[in-house]
Amino acid sequence: MSDLHIFDRMESEVRGYIRSFPVLFTHAKGSLLYDEQGKRYIDFFSGAGSLNYGHNNAILKEALLEYMQEDGVVHGLDMATTAKKSFLEAFDQYVLAPRNWNYTLQFTGPTGTNAVEAALKIARQVTGRQNVISFTHGFHGVSCGALAATANQKFRQAAGISLQNTTFMPYDGYLGPDIDTIGYLERLLEDPSSGLEKPAAVIVETIQGEGGVNVASPRWLRALQQVCRQHGILVIVDDIQVGCGRTGDFFSFEKAGIQPDIITLSKSISGYGLPMSLVLMKPELDVWQPSAHNGTFRGNNLAFVTATHALKQYWADQAFSEQIKQKEQFVRDWLENIVHSYPGSGLSVRGRGLIQGLVTPAGSDLAAEIAQTCFEAGLIIETSGAQDEVVKFLPALTISQTLLEEGLNRLEKSVATVMAQAPRTAQIVKLGAHS
Amino acid sequence: MSDLHIFDRMESEVRGYIRSFPVLFTHAKGSLLYDEQGKRYIDFFSGAGSLNYGHNNAILKEALLEYMQEDGVVHGLDMATTAKKSFLEAFDQYVLAPRNWNYTLQFTGPTGTNAVEAALKIARQVTGRQNVISFTHGFHGVSCGALAATANQKFRQAAGISLQNTTFMPYDGYLGPDIDTIGYLERLLEDPSSGLEKPAAVIVETIQGEGGVNVASPRWLRALQQVCRQHGILVIVDDIQVGCGRTGDFFSFEKAGIQPDIITLSKSISGYGLPMSLVLMKPELDVWQPSAHNGTFRGNNLAFVTATHALKQYWADQAFSEQIKQKEQFVRDWLENIVHSYPGSGLSVRGRGLIQGLVTPAGSDLAAEIAQTCFEAGLIIETSGAQDEVVKFLPALTISQTLLEEGLNRLEKSVATVMAQAPRTAQIVKLGAHS
Amino acid sequence: MSDLHIFDRMESEVRGYIRSFPVLFTHAKGSLLYDEQGKRYIDFFSGAGSLNYGHNNAILKEALLEYMQEDGVVHGLDMATTAKKSFLEAFDQYVLAPRNWNYTLQFTGPTGTNAVEAALKIARQVTGRQNVISFTHGFHGVSCGALAATANQKFRQAAGISLQNTTFMPYDGYLGPDIDTIGYLERLLEDPSSGLEKPAAVIVETIQGEGGVNVASPRWLRALQQVCRQHGILVIVDDIQVGCGRTGDFFSFEKAGIQPDIITLSKSISGYGLPMSLVLMKPELDVWQPSAHNGTFRGNNLAFVTATHALKQYWADQAFSEQIKQKEQFVRDWLENIVHSYPGSGLSVRGRGLIQGLVTPAGSDLAAEIAQTCFEAGLIIETSGAQDEVVKFLPALTISQTLLEEGLNRLEKSVATVMAQAPRTAQIVKLGAHS
Amino acid sequence: MSDLHIFDRMESEVRGYIRSFPVLFTHAKGSLLYDEQGKRYIDFFSGAGSLNYGHNNAILKEALLEYMQEDGVVHGLDMATTAKKSFLEAFDQYVLAPRNWNYTLQFTGPTGTNAVEAALKIARQVTGRQNVISFTHGFHGVSCGALAATANQKFRQAAGISLQNTTFMPYDGYLGPDIDTIGYLERLLEDPSSGLEKPAAVIVETIQGEGGVNVASPRWLRALQQVCRQHGILVIVDDIQVGCGRTGDFFSFEKAGIQPDIITLSKSISGYGLPMSLVLMKPELDVWQPSAHNGTFRGNNLAFVTATHALKQYWADQAFSEQIKQKEQFVRDWLENIVHSYPGSGLSVRGRGLIQGLVTPAGSDLAAEIAQTCFEAGLIIETSGAQDEVVKFLPALTISQTLLEEGLNRLEKSVATVMAQAPRTAQIVKLGAHS
Repeated sequence: MSDLHIFDRMESEVRGYIRSFPVLFTHAKGSLLYDEQGKRYIDFFSGAGSLNYGHNNAILKEALLEYMQEDGVVHGLDMATTAKKSFLEAFDQYVLAPRNWNYTLQFTGPTGTNAVEAALKIARQVTGRQNVISFTHGFHGVSCGALAATANQKFRQAAGISLQNTTFMPYDGYLGPDIDTIGYLERLLEDPSSGLEKPAAVIVETIQGEGGVNVASPRWLRALQQVCRQHGILVIVDDIQVGCGRTGDFFSFEKAGIQPDIITLSKSISGYGLPMSLVLMKPELDVWQPSAHNGTFRGNNLAFVTATHALKQYWADQAFSEQIKQKEQFVRDWLENIVHSYPGSGLSVRGRGLIQGLVTPAGSDLAAEIAQTCFEAGLIIETSGAQDEVVKFLPALTISQTLLEEGLNRLEKSVATVMAQAPRTAQIVKLGAHS
Repeated sequence: MSDLHIFDRMESEVRGYIRSFPVLFTHAKGSLLYDEQGKRYIDFFSGAGSLNYGHNNAILKEALLEYMQEDGVVHGLDMATTAKKSFLEAFDQYVLAPRNWNYTLQFTGPTGTNAVEAALKIARQVTGRQNVISFTHGFHGVSCGALAATANQKFRQAAGISLQNTTFMPYDGYLGPDIDTIGYLERLLEDPSSGLEKPAAVIVETIQGEGGVNVASPRWLRALQQVCRQHGILVIVDDIQVGCGRTGDFFSFEKAGIQPDIITLSKSISGYGLPMSLVLMKPELDVWQPSAHNGTFRGNNLAFVTATHALKQYWADQAFSEQIKQKEQFVRDWLENIVHSYPGSGLSVRGRGLIQGLVTPAGSDLAAEIAQTCFEAGLIIETSGAQDEVVKFLPALTISQTLLEEGLNRLEKSVATVMAQAPRTAQIVKLGAHS
Repeated sequence: MSDLHIFDRMESEVRGYIRSFPVLFTHAKGSLLYDEQGKRYIDFFSGAGSLNYGHNNAILKEALLEYMQEDGVVHGLDMATTAKKSFLEAFDQYVLAPRNWNYTLQFTGPTGTNAVEAALKIARQVTGRQNVISFTHGFHGVSCGALAATANQKFRQAAGISLQNTTFMPYDGYLGPDIDTIGYLERLLEDPSSGLEKPAAVIVETIQGEGGVNVASPRWLRALQQVCRQHGILVIVDDIQVGCGRTGDFFSFEKAGIQPDIITLSKSISGYGLPMSLVLMKPELDVWQPSAHNGTFRGNNLAFVTATHALKQYWADQAFSEQIKQKEQFVRDWLENIVHSYPGSGLSVRGRGLIQGLVTPAGSDLAAEIAQTCFEAGLIIETSGAQDEVVKFLPALTISQTLLEEGLNRLEKSVATVMAQAPRTAQIVKLGAHS
Repeated sequence: MSDLHIFDRMESEVRGYIRSFPVLFTHAKGSLLYDEQGKRYIDFFSGAGSLNYGHNNAILKEALLEYMQEDGVVHGLDMATTAKKSFLEAFDQYVLAPRNWNYTLQFTGPTGTNAVEAALKIARQVTGRQNVISFTHGFHGVSCGALAATANQKFRQAAGISLQNTTFMPYDGYLGPDIDTIGYLERLLEDPSSGLEKPAAVIVETIQGEGGVNVASPRWLRALQQVCRQHGILVIVDDIQVGCGRTGDFFSFEKAGIQPDIITLSKSISGYGLPMSLVLMKPELDVWQPSAHNGTFRGNNLAFVTATHALKQYWADQAFSEQIKQKEQFVRDWLENIVHSYPGSGLSVRGRGLIQGLVTPAGSDLAAEIAQTCFEAGLIIETSGAQDEVVKFLPALTISQTLLEEGLNRLEKSVATVMAQAPRTAQIVKLGAHS
């Protein structure tokens, strides 16, 4: 094991992943990470979705080094730079124009939560309403504006204040397959005495990554959009974790055929793991006063460089998208095979594209044990869900078939190891438990 | 002029600095920026304080390129990496150990506002109190937790919600030189019927950069710390803009001899304009639960690399500090000479270290006109203050004597040009106007 | 019609009932009101539940006059008076002791909303939690603390601020007969990522008077209490409108067999329509500091006098309770007969004891038209519900059989008149409409 | 002593005055109270200002008994009754018309705090702003909307939630005689970066009764009104404790010559200690929707009867007003004589009309000891102020000269007794202590 003493001594107890993966990482390339002992790890975690094109992607790296060597502007606030201009052109050419979409771009401080803060401000300014609807198990960040829309109590309680102006509604399937949670929302909106303060917007993830790989059906998303349109409520899709190709399309909501009023992007938008965030809004919603939402690093030009090249390289045609969908099928089959090997165990699979969850019974520690066993076997994979009951599979979209298989093999063996040790009781599905 | 059409077409109205400096910047080195026509600009703005060591600092650049070429880990969440380990070691060696200080480090999402959010959460968790004291003209960021402590209505109104849990108190000198604003705070704290809900913390800038280069006296800061200690209130110094050497010392509060409970750093901590943030807290305040405050880019390893080398290069001994103080004297003399050239004009100078403000009468447009004239003359300088009445001088700390003089010459001429045109009425100080 | 010009001229637009009953009332006795022309009205409204023993009840009146003539203390703040002492003794003797219950009494400012404010404060102080659960269609008052728990937007919007610290859950039956709304609550409470901030208390009406005479089943109330007990959440029953005998028992929740932690009483507690309020709390919840919740009129001694005699007269044995239940049966039969006369009309009856609602299709104006027709026929009856779709039958509990029949006859005829004129379309039940 | 066992056993710890005056009161007449042992007490407390015309005032009593004997309507919600009509006529004739004032009347739930809630709602609805300015030591009630504007922490902390949307400013003299607190407010309002969210209204007491008999100067009130007018901020005068003649004029602010936008009245408006409240608003502010602010007891007709006769009896001409001012002079002289008897003791007098405070050094227990000694001597008088350091003199306005002198004699002797025992140290004025 690595000497991590200085982290223990100097870094706050808030540190997290270092506890799950307690080694000192030195290098990384594509889907592989290396620690200081030279041990090689397959990465099924991908920086929590920030490394969709792998570590130190060669194409992006080349562009980045060239820009830096020529002393391109690195820090530009929101001044015009060649790097930013190129990004705007590429985003127009490869993302908006092919879809005939018209969105205005806002570059916020380069973290996801800053983008969410801006999105919520826009919705509130435009509608003059304060309330926002978020969903059970939703995660949108931990700065106070975004945190108010984040469901998990661990994060909320850390605020030390009462978080307000948000109403949580049940996500698709939260109340079981038979209950139409959009119908419930509609009922509340139509009833002047429901207690629901009319919201400025709903903010929704099409797949809840942190929340446990819960997938909203296209039908549910369409119904949500329809109800919102009827009531003059804006739809914000937080596509920070599952946008940028994770589901096969550039945006995760394309399959559902909806068109959100506001979209937040971050994580993999730069493509190289560099901090960058983006808010897309329909042009008529752009009510901002100049500089009314700022942030020193909103012009992270290195990120613009890699973002531009990522769009050019991967999104100029449909090829990449199709590769992702093929991988999805391959992975999904594999995971379902694993599940079917343990009938009655309460295991299941859910997900879309290359975000898939191996769901274990809530209340058991199986997911954590599987992730831990994987790590020992040289595979980095994380858990998510309200009780960390889901093993979240999140490889680079660019992963090679060889590494994908090698990783899945390690996962399969780790599951086998853990299930062999699992007491019978742990395998019993807790009745009524759900996403 | 540059063709900035695509920015107008695609980017939100929220964009700001592009309006003041409407050219396309291509390259930058040290204290110089270049636009696409090859025009050269001296930079007295420094990325709003993010470029204390200049653009593309050669020493940092070399270290960065080497790290990247070797495929060091770029995106590491909060896993242990060699880059992060080196930074911890350097921060200990060059910052904490020489001062015999003991602070625990928290790496938050890499923007200043994320650090402020974390700092406020710590204070509230530790004390169990919700209220926080901030000061008139204070700026701490625009995500909702930090925004509640930011005084400027332009930012606050954009939230679209009522921002709570903050009480604003008058900053040093706000009520004129004769009124002891700490005495007023003390009175409120001691009076159980003052209406002041006992706060978890005060959050204070030693110099208010955005607020108009308002300087708190060492005496005021010491009195503030003393009152807080007496009442069990934590002191948070937001050193995001004026820390990292801006005032001559690494921390801006060292001159006052206070020792804050919590310190926030960002902007120039990476030294290269790369997004990075840091919260320092006294070890006994580290009540965080693991992962209770997260952020995808909190492990921006490229920033750790440059931050490490910046500490090593500039803060291993007192030499750099002394250079800054010499420059301060040189600049201050020059600025005061400018002011003295316009007796009765209402111009004045204030500041500390290499943040200096040329203050124009509130209500006049002189500051904006001076900055605009400077820009035309190839000098980038910004305004700040509640009514943008202060020309804020913020050069790189590493600026050469030659460029410093060239820049000051341009500034002096621009002032002359503007003052020559200024109608008499504009030069009359509005009675009662202040900081 | 009366000359009500001075009301139009001097009184705020906020006035309400004067619009429904635009005459000048001069006298009242039992279940009869008289206007200045001497017209006689049967009262099926009873001061919104404040006159359970009728207007100017002779027994109470005699006691009151005697007390006043002897110059008993009228205004006593919360000093000890003979009137207050007698009330405490009577409440112990006739209410608490027979049930073997132990509750501590708090006299708040003499309006229902003041009692609710105190109840919520107790729950928050005891648990240290800020959130409270209220229910769809719940009404608890319009001062801001109580208003936050009141569902109706008409009242909420008038606050002009964002009302916080309350989560609304669906009341019994709100989502249709097949959905277990307590199961939903339980799910949210058990899920650490549901977004529900753990509440200090639930506040619930066993029958929602203002909300449209929605009746919670005993089973639902018991399940609610059980879930709350499991999670350490206090149960507040707001018995202001349907307590004091309205349902046949003194407390409305007795039939369900639950025992709330906190109970609010007002309206008919004085028995004579005099302002009085009362909070009952389990003794271990009495965490109040002396005087920490005050109110000038909390010692309304005239109300104590009539309250004492009302308890003595009506609640010393079971006789009154049995009379109410007999009347309930009589009334219920009558109302159901009315409904059955209009098959397919969407009319229905719901209620318990002597609060019964004649429910008309939501969206129609039938209820308002019926109430208006009744008024012209000399019967005072009001509507309630989110869309005022329910004719709320609320006679004095002491009404004579003769007047009861006379009133029901008038009601029946008014329904007939209105239904004869109602267009077919108005009679169609809007699909999905509910309580 | 009386047997108060049942109060200890059944009543909440929140009870207050029963602790200061632990006897059982049986009868009351004018300025005299009697306990069950027949002991006679002179009342210098007057139900905290609710009994300006004394206990069981004979004129009002006669009118009240007559109304009740004839079965006038007692409980009328907000329906039109003869009692209410008469009150409107009298208020117009004796209050508004003589002053040529035009105010619209709103009858709220009959407690002061309900009136304050309504006043704040009006201001917020009219302006669309959420913030309100209140003052240090201000008291406006304990329901959450009013409580947010109440300065005392004892009351605020009992809420168990964070009270929001209020900014406290220093009251007249709070920062010492040399600091212009209105100038400070103006400075904050004019500075867009002061942190002060522009308020809907200021709410102010002209004399802070609960806060320690702090008197705002006419000049300060006029300056406050002027600043508010300039900034489009409404002025609410909370005249609940010192209106209805307490200062000599019917309204306490008449001397200052201001004309508030909204006025709250309660306490002595009924004149007989019966619960009643009233909000006066300029007609153009009457934006209420019908019934948007309700309350079961807002039509307390018994209170209307006595209120009508009180206006007719005492306010038809200037005689009563002049008597009060004569008594003020008599009392003031007497109190100042007392103070002058103890030079260097830190005692002082402040007040206006028949609300006068004998101020003792903060931190001493002198005020409580004096009140306690008075009680033993048969004089009921209370303390107020943030630290209960003020003996608050609040007799009935109708008190006879004989009783007034007898009471002042008892007070003087009690002061003498206490001062004779007071240790020297307790008599030293704490430096810097104030109002």
